[in-house]
Amino acid sequence: MTLPVDAPDPALLDDLVAANRILYSEGVVDGFGHVSARHDKEPGRFLLARSMAPGLVTGDDILTFDLDSNAVDAGSRALYLERFIHSEIYKARPDVAAIVHSHSPSVIPFGATAVALRPIYHMSGFLGAGAPVFEIRDAGGDDTDMLIRSPALGAALARRLGGAAVALLRGHGNVVVAPSLRLAVFRAIYTEINARLEAEALLLGQGRVTFLNEKEAAAAAAANSPQVGRAWELWKHKAMGGSR
Amino acid sequence: MTLPVDAPDPALLDDLVAANRILYSEGVVDGFGHVSARHDKEPGRFLLARSMAPGLVTGDDILTFDLDSNAVDAGSRALYLERFIHSEIYKARPDVAAIVHSHSPSVIPFGATAVALRPIYHMSGFLGAGAPVFEIRDAGGDDTDMLIRSPALGAALARRLGGAAVALLRGHGNVVVAPSLRLAVFRAIYTEINARLEAEALLLGQGRVTFLNEKEAAAAAAANSPQVGRAWELWKHKAMGGSR
Amino acid sequence: MTLPVDAPDPALLDDLVAANRILYSEGVVDGFGHVSARHDKEPGRFLLARSMAPGLVTGDDILTFDLDSNAVDAGSRALYLERFIHSEIYKARPDVAAIVHSHSPSVIPFGATAVALRPIYHMSGFLGAGAPVFEIRDAGGDDTDMLIRSPALGAALARRLGGAAVALLRGHGNVVVAPSLRLAVFRAIYTEINARLEAEALLLGQGRVTFLNEKEAAAAAAANSPQVGRAWELWKHKAMGGSR
Amino acid sequence: MTLPVDAPDPALLDDLVAANRILYSEGVVDGFGHVSARHDKEPGRFLLARSMAPGLVTGDDILTFDLDSNAVDAGSRALYLERFIHSEIYKARPDVAAIVHSHSPSVIPFGATAVALRPIYHMSGFLGAGAPVFEIRDAGGDDTDMLIRSPALGAALARRLGGAAVALLRGHGNVVVAPSLRLAVFRAIYTEINARLEAEALLLGQGRVTFLNEKEAAAAAAANSPQVGRAWELWKHKAMGGSR
Repeated sequence: MTLPVDAPDPALLDDLVAANRILYSEGVVDGFGHVSARHDKEPGRFLLARSMAPGLVTGDDILTFDLDSNAVDAGSRALYLERFIHSEIYKARPDVAAIVHSHSPSVIPFGATAVALRPIYHMSGFLGAGAPVFEIRDAGGDDTDMLIRSPALGAALARRLGGAAVALLRGHGNVVVAPSLRLAVFRAIYTEINARLEAEALLLGQGRVTFLNEKEAAAAAAANSPQVGRAWELWKHKAMGGSR
Repeated sequence: MTLPVDAPDPALLDDLVAANRILYSEGVVDGFGHVSARHDKEPGRFLLARSMAPGLVTGDDILTFDLDSNAVDAGSRALYLERFIHSEIYKARPDVAAIVHSHSPSVIPFGATAVALRPIYHMSGFLGAGAPVFEIRDAGGDDTDMLIRSPALGAALARRLGGAAVALLRGHGNVVVAPSLRLAVFRAIYTEINARLEAEALLLGQGRVTFLNEKEAAAAAAANSPQVGRAWELWKHKAMGGSR
Repeated sequence: MTLPVDAPDPALLDDLVAANRILYSEGVVDGFGHVSARHDKEPGRFLLARSMAPGLVTGDDILTFDLDSNAVDAGSRALYLERFIHSEIYKARPDVAAIVHSHSPSVIPFGATAVALRPIYHMSGFLGAGAPVFEIRDAGGDDTDMLIRSPALGAALARRLGGAAVALLRGHGNVVVAPSLRLAVFRAIYTEINARLEAEALLLGQGRVTFLNEKEAAAAAAANSPQVGRAWELWKHKAMGGSR
Repeated sequence: MTLPVDAPDPALLDDLVAANRILYSEGVVDGFGHVSARHDKEPGRFLLARSMAPGLVTGDDILTFDLDSNAVDAGSRALYLERFIHSEIYKARPDVAAIVHSHSPSVIPFGATAVALRPIYHMSGFLGAGAPVFEIRDAGGDDTDMLIRSPALGAALARRLGGAAVALLRGHGNVVVAPSLRLAVFRAIYTEINARLEAEALLLGQGRVTFLNEKEAAAAAAANSPQVGRAWELWKHKAMGGSR
């Protein structure tokens, strides 16, 4: 079979299926949440599953979208209501190659309080640039259904994210971006773990905690990026049902 | 085989078995707790397992009850002592098509303290109408065994529930109702998660937490209701032993 | 093969193997801890595994002991150092038919602080009689290795237990007793769960928690005892590897 | 095939593979962290996996290093950046036969606050000698990437460890040492559990907790050392995929 000229790299598709399964297996997503990858050959497109639980996604469920969140090949399949999270961030951030949106549980309390998410250990150095909180009331008023269900809300979220790796959505969840799909998954997982450990440390230390400073955070993030494959192999092995 | 005219929809029976398994698989029930569905053809009847652990229920274990909690077809099989929770709520709430009673762990502390269960994120918008606490001492005195073992106690609980989706039973557990079986399971699972996340947020924020306001909660609940199937497929896949 | 006249009921042996597996499966014991049953025909003897992890016990590992903790049939097999917990409690409490000793994690903080373990819900009504803390320094001085490794320490522990269902060992773990083996397992599991929920409730309510009163606790314990089989079937199914 | 005269005991290699799997299975390591054993015949060498997730290590992945962290037999295989943790501690501590480095989650908050890790129960008596915190800023300045990526940093860590069994690395993880491989695994697992239980107890008791005193801790550690095999069999059974 001849692939169309703009078909994405099959390895990227495989990784996107694995990313869906891994995020469920590691407790970042449950029946909801989604992960996308920018098309490797056409930067004005991105890949995202049809509306379904990430833990059940297969290759046949991956659709292609343009940056207005129109699906090129959906047919009658339902689309995620919040696909505008992806399209608007891809528009605003040319450096971003992958996006995870989740209701990652330990992060929810940080979105609902004034406590900042900060890097408590080197695995989450990517949080050193800060994790802004998006208050949907600022962009959509006080009677939304909390969902990023329009280009305008997606654009407002992208503005709040700015150049950061992570943004928290008050009363909803979070968004994690990265220059590669595997790194986005890595960051989503360690955002969840960092939130849990930071909350525990703040209780243990009665508010007095030593976080990574900006230089440590940046250097740790740079050191970890090339090591992502080591964790990916394990996560994939576990998520895709290999015997351990 | 000819089914009696009043046989419930086989799909509803299948869903009720799955609901039992899912509630165990997702940590809402342990060896105790139960879930019922109103008969789809006879609103004066409901379907509920014989007295057994929900995680082991099969289709053969489902019995039919009238609204006085008499089993139509139990034979010698033991009945749940607390079946009056179901019959009295079905009597009082014609809008209710399914009921979950559980000792869902994270919810227990909310039943035993003065802290209100409130929606911390959009997945639990159905909590926006409030979750009243039922104090059995008000209806049964201070020497009960805590169980809703009579029509009178069931009726008192139904009155305390009022029009809400969730009621907490002090020192016991909670009751969740919904206009469909799948939505009742969804609400029971997110009641448990919300309780955990709210407790964490209150500690993290030292009591200062931004909850969904009433409009956000109602709109989020309305937006989520049609999405329940997405999570149901995942929960069923996991609970019924499919490979992932 | 002719069984000796004093052989225990094979069903009791089966239950004791299952009890070992269940306590591991439900997180009450890890590689350490043990469970015994009084011999059903000879009240001056009890059944206890050789020194090994409870999660791996089979019928061949069960030994018979007298009430001085001498093994009748151990051969060269190693014995638990703390078997005196069992022998001394069986001596002191004719009503006791089974004993669980564990380092059940959520209970450890209650043994190390002045906070009393109290029944937060009806599943743990058996805690209504109180759960005394055994301080080994009172009986053994301040330089023990914390183990109940002698008849004298076992007797001191039995005295501290008094007529209660549960005693906490400071810096060590806890002991749970019951008039039947299945009820001892039930109580051990809900002692662990109650400890976790009570700690959460005390944090949530800033110390203000409504516990079951004495009458409620006693009535709930009486109501639950006949229901133990419902949970046992589930726990055994899970622990013995049945598909769910 | 003739083994070279300095080949390690095959049983030690088997145990090192099992140690890698166990540490993952018990939640001490995730995709990162490593465990080494001193060569049983050549004390100037140690055994450590190539750079990979511990949960996937097989016998073919084990390499031999000298005490300057040069791999004898790596070929083109990547090495852990932090292998100097191992080489410098083996140099400084002739009594040490095995080392675990992990980001064991519950321990992270103790490294980031001023709260000391202390033995809350007899399973962690080895903590009685104290668990010093290594602040990398003291040895490497305030702009490191947090990694022990040089002999100098490894030596500074070894000095901070002193004669203790455990050292915490601020913003990073911890190091556990022992006179045998199985005991190092045992200590790493109970360091994690102790941290969780100590944090819970400090919250529950509002800071007032009775820890093991020095004599109790030393005696308990001595009593537990010969019992390690009991837990090892269980952990190995679970980690290596045996049916339970």
